[in-house]
Amino acid sequence: MKVLIISADNFEDSELLYPYYRLQEEKIDVDIASIATDKIKGKKGYEVNVDKRIDDVDPESYDLLILPGGKAPAVLRKVNKVIEIASHFIKNNKPIAAICHGPQILISTGLLSGRHATCYMSVAPELKDVGTNYDDREVVVDGNIVTSRKPGDLPAFMRETLKLLNS
Amino acid sequence: MKVLIISADNFEDSELLYPYYRLQEEKIDVDIASIATDKIKGKKGYEVNVDKRIDDVDPESYDLLILPGGKAPAVLRKVNKVIEIASHFIKNNKPIAAICHGPQILISTGLLSGRHATCYMSVAPELKDVGTNYDDREVVVDGNIVTSRKPGDLPAFMRETLKLLNS
Repeated sequence: MKVLIISADNFEDSELLYPYYRLQEEKIDVDIASIATDKIKGKKGYEVNVDKRIDDVDPESYDLLILPGGKAPAVLRKVNKVIEIASHFIKNNKPIAAICHGPQILISTGLLSGRHATCYMSVAPELKDVGTNYDDREVVVDGNIVTSRKPGDLPAFMRETLKLLNS
Repeated sequence: MKVLIISADNFEDSELLYPYYRLQEEKIDVDIASIATDKIKGKKGYEVNVDKRIDDVDPESYDLLILPGGKAPAVLRKVNKVIEIASHFIKNNKPIAAICHGPQILISTGLLSGRHATCYMSVAPELKDVGTNYDDREVVVDGNIVTSRKPGDLPAFMRETLKLLNS
């Protein structure tokens, strides 16, 4: 079992750290991938080491993709390889968990039409614009896609993500 | 099952938030108690609501006490009621989990002599001074007392704390 977290500077700290520590608690291998090569820094100042450059990621090697929020997804959604990786997970029905601004990356795949999802309040209009059914709930699970709105949703977000991973 | 987290302003954000969310993920009731009555703010800027004033805490109502680190424990260890609560847990063999500077509160109970524990590096000398066996490991479990050193130990800290709570 191996998990990929894709993020960048200005991530929402708790939305990266909570899943990262939670998966380690389960003794699951986690790689953090980014456009930076050394460390990335959250909005609140936490730093985490980058394990992989985005360009070196083979999505076939991973069983779950996690997309934390903050300001990172607005940058990452413009990176072709990030969209390729997210598309690989959606098309192959592999688990994806995106929270807050994380779903912006899923929107940019163009593969979210007709799906059910949630996201940070300010992202909701563009989620609806691409034909996604938006629900204002702490967590929405649609097949292989788990989405949540904000840090306070992290308990429900990881409860459902781990349920999906172990199913 | 009910859990008490005691903290104050300048808590180490992840050391409060990770256990707080983790217990909610398990659908366990958690109360945050403090000397402040409204909200408390972490070193990195996260705010959490205070559910109970320290003076109003009945330790008999709780099954687990969590003591996060940061600068909060240095203040809390001087509050008689906090020491009374921590002593209740130690004397009655009820689960306690303290991380980083959190063990400072346990030191102030005067009940840690002969026990095994860990803590933040700079706290180690005073832990040894009161006759505690200090180990530089990610988590030390001695009967009802779980201790860890720093944020990066949170996965092991909560793995062992939940094991103890469910035993």
